[in-house]
Amino acid sequence: MKKRPVIRVLGFLLVVTALSLLLPALASWLGGDADAWSFLAAAGVGLALGALMWRTGSDAREIRVREGFAVVTLGWTLVGLLGGLPGWFSGEIPGFTDSMFESISGFSTTGASILTDIEGRSHGVLLWRSLSHWLGGMGIVVLALAILPLLGVGGMQLFRAEVPGPVAERLTPRISQTAKLLWGVYVLLTVVETAALMIAGLSFFDAICHSMATMATGGFSTLNNSVGGYDSAAVDWIIIVFMFLAGVNFTLHFLALRGRVRSYAADEEFRFYVTLIGGAAVIIAGSLFVVGYYGSIHDTIRHTLFQVLAIVTTTGFGTADYLLWPPVAHAILLMLMAVGGCAGSTGGGIKVMRLLLLFKVGQQELNKLLHPRAITTLWFNGRSVKPHLATNVLGFFLLFMMVYAVGVIALTLGGRDLLTAVGATAASLGNIGPGLGTVGPACNYAHLLSWEKWLLMFFMLAGRLEIYTVLVLLLPGAWRRA
Amino acid sequence: MKKRPVIRVLGFLLVVTALSLLLPALASWLGGDADAWSFLAAAGVGLALGALMWRTGSDAREIRVREGFAVVTLGWTLVGLLGGLPGWFSGEIPGFTDSMFESISGFSTTGASILTDIEGRSHGVLLWRSLSHWLGGMGIVVLALAILPLLGVGGMQLFRAEVPGPVAERLTPRISQTAKLLWGVYVLLTVVETAALMIAGLSFFDAICHSMATMATGGFSTLNNSVGGYDSAAVDWIIIVFMFLAGVNFTLHFLALRGRVRSYAADEEFRFYVTLIGGAAVIIAGSLFVVGYYGSIHDTIRHTLFQVLAIVTTTGFGTADYLLWPPVAHAILLMLMAVGGCAGSTGGGIKVMRLLLLFKVGQQELNKLLHPRAITTLWFNGRSVKPHLATNVLGFFLLFMMVYAVGVIALTLGGRDLLTAVGATAASLGNIGPGLGTVGPACNYAHLLSWEKWLLMFFMLAGRLEIYTVLVLLLPGAWRRA
Repeated sequence: MKKRPVIRVLGFLLVVTALSLLLPALASWLGGDADAWSFLAAAGVGLALGALMWRTGSDAREIRVREGFAVVTLGWTLVGLLGGLPGWFSGEIPGFTDSMFESISGFSTTGASILTDIEGRSHGVLLWRSLSHWLGGMGIVVLALAILPLLGVGGMQLFRAEVPGPVAERLTPRISQTAKLLWGVYVLLTVVETAALMIAGLSFFDAICHSMATMATGGFSTLNNSVGGYDSAAVDWIIIVFMFLAGVNFTLHFLALRGRVRSYAADEEFRFYVTLIGGAAVIIAGSLFVVGYYGSIHDTIRHTLFQVLAIVTTTGFGTADYLLWPPVAHAILLMLMAVGGCAGSTGGGIKVMRLLLLFKVGQQELNKLLHPRAITTLWFNGRSVKPHLATNVLGFFLLFMMVYAVGVIALTLGGRDLLTAVGATAASLGNIGPGLGTVGPACNYAHLLSWEKWLLMFFMLAGRLEIYTVLVLLLPGAWRRA
Repeated sequence: MKKRPVIRVLGFLLVVTALSLLLPALASWLGGDADAWSFLAAAGVGLALGALMWRTGSDAREIRVREGFAVVTLGWTLVGLLGGLPGWFSGEIPGFTDSMFESISGFSTTGASILTDIEGRSHGVLLWRSLSHWLGGMGIVVLALAILPLLGVGGMQLFRAEVPGPVAERLTPRISQTAKLLWGVYVLLTVVETAALMIAGLSFFDAICHSMATMATGGFSTLNNSVGGYDSAAVDWIIIVFMFLAGVNFTLHFLALRGRVRSYAADEEFRFYVTLIGGAAVIIAGSLFVVGYYGSIHDTIRHTLFQVLAIVTTTGFGTADYLLWPPVAHAILLMLMAVGGCAGSTGGGIKVMRLLLLFKVGQQELNKLLHPRAITTLWFNGRSVKPHLATNVLGFFLLFMMVYAVGVIALTLGGRDLLTAVGATAASLGNIGPGLGTVGPACNYAHLLSWEKWLLMFFMLAGRLEIYTVLVLLLPGAWRRA
C-alpha cells in the first residue's frame, strides 16, 4: 500500500470536518452557551493536523483499490475522533470514551446515545450531533454510489443495472458529478423536510436538527424522549414520509425529479422494500389492535409505521417503547434490524437489494431440484445477474453474521444478558441506535463499560462501511508494499 | 409425478414399522405393563394399510427424482403417525396430538418431549421412544449418504470428495451395499455403547434405550431428569464419547474400522467439528470456572462437554440446566443449535460441512478484494469445489433461515415470548429437543397449544429431511404429471 497519498486525503477530510465545526460554534454563541470555544479549539486541532497531513502526503491520484479501503476506513475513524473532541473539551459530554462514542455514533449515522439529559446540552452540541449524522450520510451517498463500486465491494456493482431507462438518462459516470447530483437531492429533501416540520410547529433549530437526522437515517433527536417528545401526529407523519424516502436509493429520487416518476415502480428493490414495510406493519398493527394497545386505529397505524420505518431504515427515532408491544413485534423488529435501507440510500444494515438477491438464489435452488437440467439465470430489474455477484452477496452476508456472532459472544462474555448483547450488536452493526434489553428504546448506552463502548464503535464503523471495507484492512496482505 | 410407485414404497415402510412395533409389545408384556395390546393393535393397522398400499402401488423401479422427494417426506410422516398410535390407543400418552408429537419427535431424532412423568410410562412406551430414534437415525444414514446425493440435494454431493484415500478404498457406489456397510457401523457402535453403559451400572433396558438415543442423536431418556438423573460421571463420559462419534460422518468410522484411522485427521470437516467443539467448550468452561458454578474442575469440564455435545450433535440429552449458566453460554449454545453434526452423521441442523464451506466463501471474497484479478478456487479435502455447490449451500442456508423466521413469527404471533419462540423453532428445526425459555432443558413442550405442536412437528420433519426435500413438494410443479 502507498501510504502518502492516503495521508493526503485523510488530511483533506480533517480540514473539511474542522470547517464544519464552525457551525456548532456559531450555534452555541448565538444560543448563549458557554462552550463555543470547545468547537473552535477542536476546529483548530483539525486544521493543524489536517494541514500537516496534507503537506506530508503525496498526490492523491496515486490512490488505487487498496489505498481506497484505507482512506474510507481511516477517514471515517479520524473524522469521528475529531468530532468527539469538543464535547470532551467542554465537559458537555462526560468523559473521553463517551464523547467519542457519541461522535462516532453520529458520523456512522447510528444514533446510539450515551446522553441521559439531552435537552440540557448546549445548542452547539445538539447541532453538532445532527450535523455529524448529516455529513456522515452525505459521505455514505458518495461512498455507496461512487466509491464502493470502484473498489468492487459487495452488491453495489448492481448500481448500474439498477438505474432504469435508456442510456442517455443515466447518471454521469464521473464520480465528482454523480456525487454532486445526488448531494443535490439530499440537500433538497433536507430543506423540504425542515420546512414541513416548521409548518407542523417546530422551531427552525429543532426542525433542521431532526431533518438532518432523518435524511441521514441517523436518529439523534434534540429531545430526551426522541420524536415521541412532541406527541404530535403531524410531526410523526412528516418524519414517517422522510424516513421512507431516506431509505430509498437516491438515484430513484434523482430520476423522479427529472420527471421519471415511474422509476420507483420499475425498480425491483423498491417494490421489495415497500412489500417488507407493508408486511411488517400489517402484522404488528394487527397484533397491537388485537390487544387494544392504542386507543384509536390512527394511533396504532401511526406508531407502527413510525417504529417499522425507524428500524428498517436504521434511523432509530422513537415514539413508543416497542419492548412493551406484543412478542411478535419484537420478533419482526429484530429481523428488520438486519435488513436496512435500499442500496444507494443512507440506510445501514445488509440492504434490501442483497436480501432480495438471496431470496432469488433460494428460490432458484428449489426450482433446480425439480428441473435439474434446466439452465437458470438470476434476473434483477430485467437484467441477468452475473453468477459471481451471488457469491459476493453471500460472502457479505456471512461476514456480517460472523462479526455479529463475535459481538454477541464478547458482550455476553463480559456478563451482559443475551437479549442486550444481541440488541446492542445488531443496533450498532446495523447503524440503528436503540436495541433490545437494557439498550432498548426507553434506555440508552450510558451504563455500558468503556471496552464495550469501544467495541460497539468499531461495529458502527464496520457496519457503516459495508464490513468488507474494514475487514479487508485486517488481512496482512493489505499492508504489503505494492 | 407418478403416484403409484410412491404408494408401493410407502406401503413397504409401513410394514417395516409395523413389524418393529412387536418389540415394544414384547417389552410391555415382559415388564408386566397393561399396554402390550396397543402396540399389537398399531402393528395391525400398519400391516393392513401397508399391505393395501403395496398392492395398490406399482413397480418401485419407476421412481425418479420427483418421486424420491415424495417418498422421503411422506414416508417419514406416515411412519411418524403410525408410531404415535400405540400411546394414543392405550392412553399412556395423553391425547392424539401429544402422541403424534412424541412419535414424530422420535423418528425425526429430535427428542422434544411432552411427557412430564417419563419414569411412570410402560416399558413398551419407553423402548418405543428410543427405538423410533434409532430407526429414524438408521433412515437418516441411508438418506444422507445414499438417497439425497441421487436427488441432488444440498451439499451432500460432497460425499464422494469427502472420502479420502485411493479409489479402491472408497465405499461401494451401490445404494443397498453402502447402506448395509454403514448400518453395520451404526449397529456396532450401539452395541459397544450399550455394553459400556451396563459396565457403568445401568440395567440392560436403560443401557440399550440410552444407547439407541445417543447413536441416533435423538435425546429421549428413560428418566425424568434425562441423563442427569444418574448423576454418574462414568455414564456422562461414556455418553459424551458416543455423542461425539454419532456427530461424525459415518464413512470415517467405516474407514477407521478398516484400519484407516488417519481418515479422521485427513478430513477437513472433522477437524472443523473438533475445533468448534473445543472452542465452545473452552469459552463456556472458562466462564463457569470464573463464577465458580461447579465445585471441581472435573465437573466443570464434564458438564460443559456434555451440554456442548448434546447441542452441537443435536442429541439434546441434559445433565444441567444451561439457562442458569452465565450469558455467554446461552449465546454460544444458541449458535451451536444451528450447526448440527457433520454431513453423513445422524446429527441434524445445517451441518458442519455447509458451515465450513460458507466460511471459505467469505474468506475468498475478502481475498478477492485485495487481488481482484486473481483466479480463486474453493478447496475442500484437497479437491476443488464446483462453483455451483456454493450457491446450493447458500440456498439451503437461506431456506433454513426463512423457515426459522416463519416459525418465530408464527409462535410470537400466538403470544409466546421471543426467547421461547426462538428456542422452540431452533430446537425443532435443528432436531435438538430442549430449547430456550419455557421449552428449556428444565421444562418440556407439554404446555404448548395443539397448533403449535403440529407446527413444530412440521419443522422437525423439514429439518430432518434437509428442508429442500420437504419444501420442494410445496412447489406446484412437483405434482404435475411427468
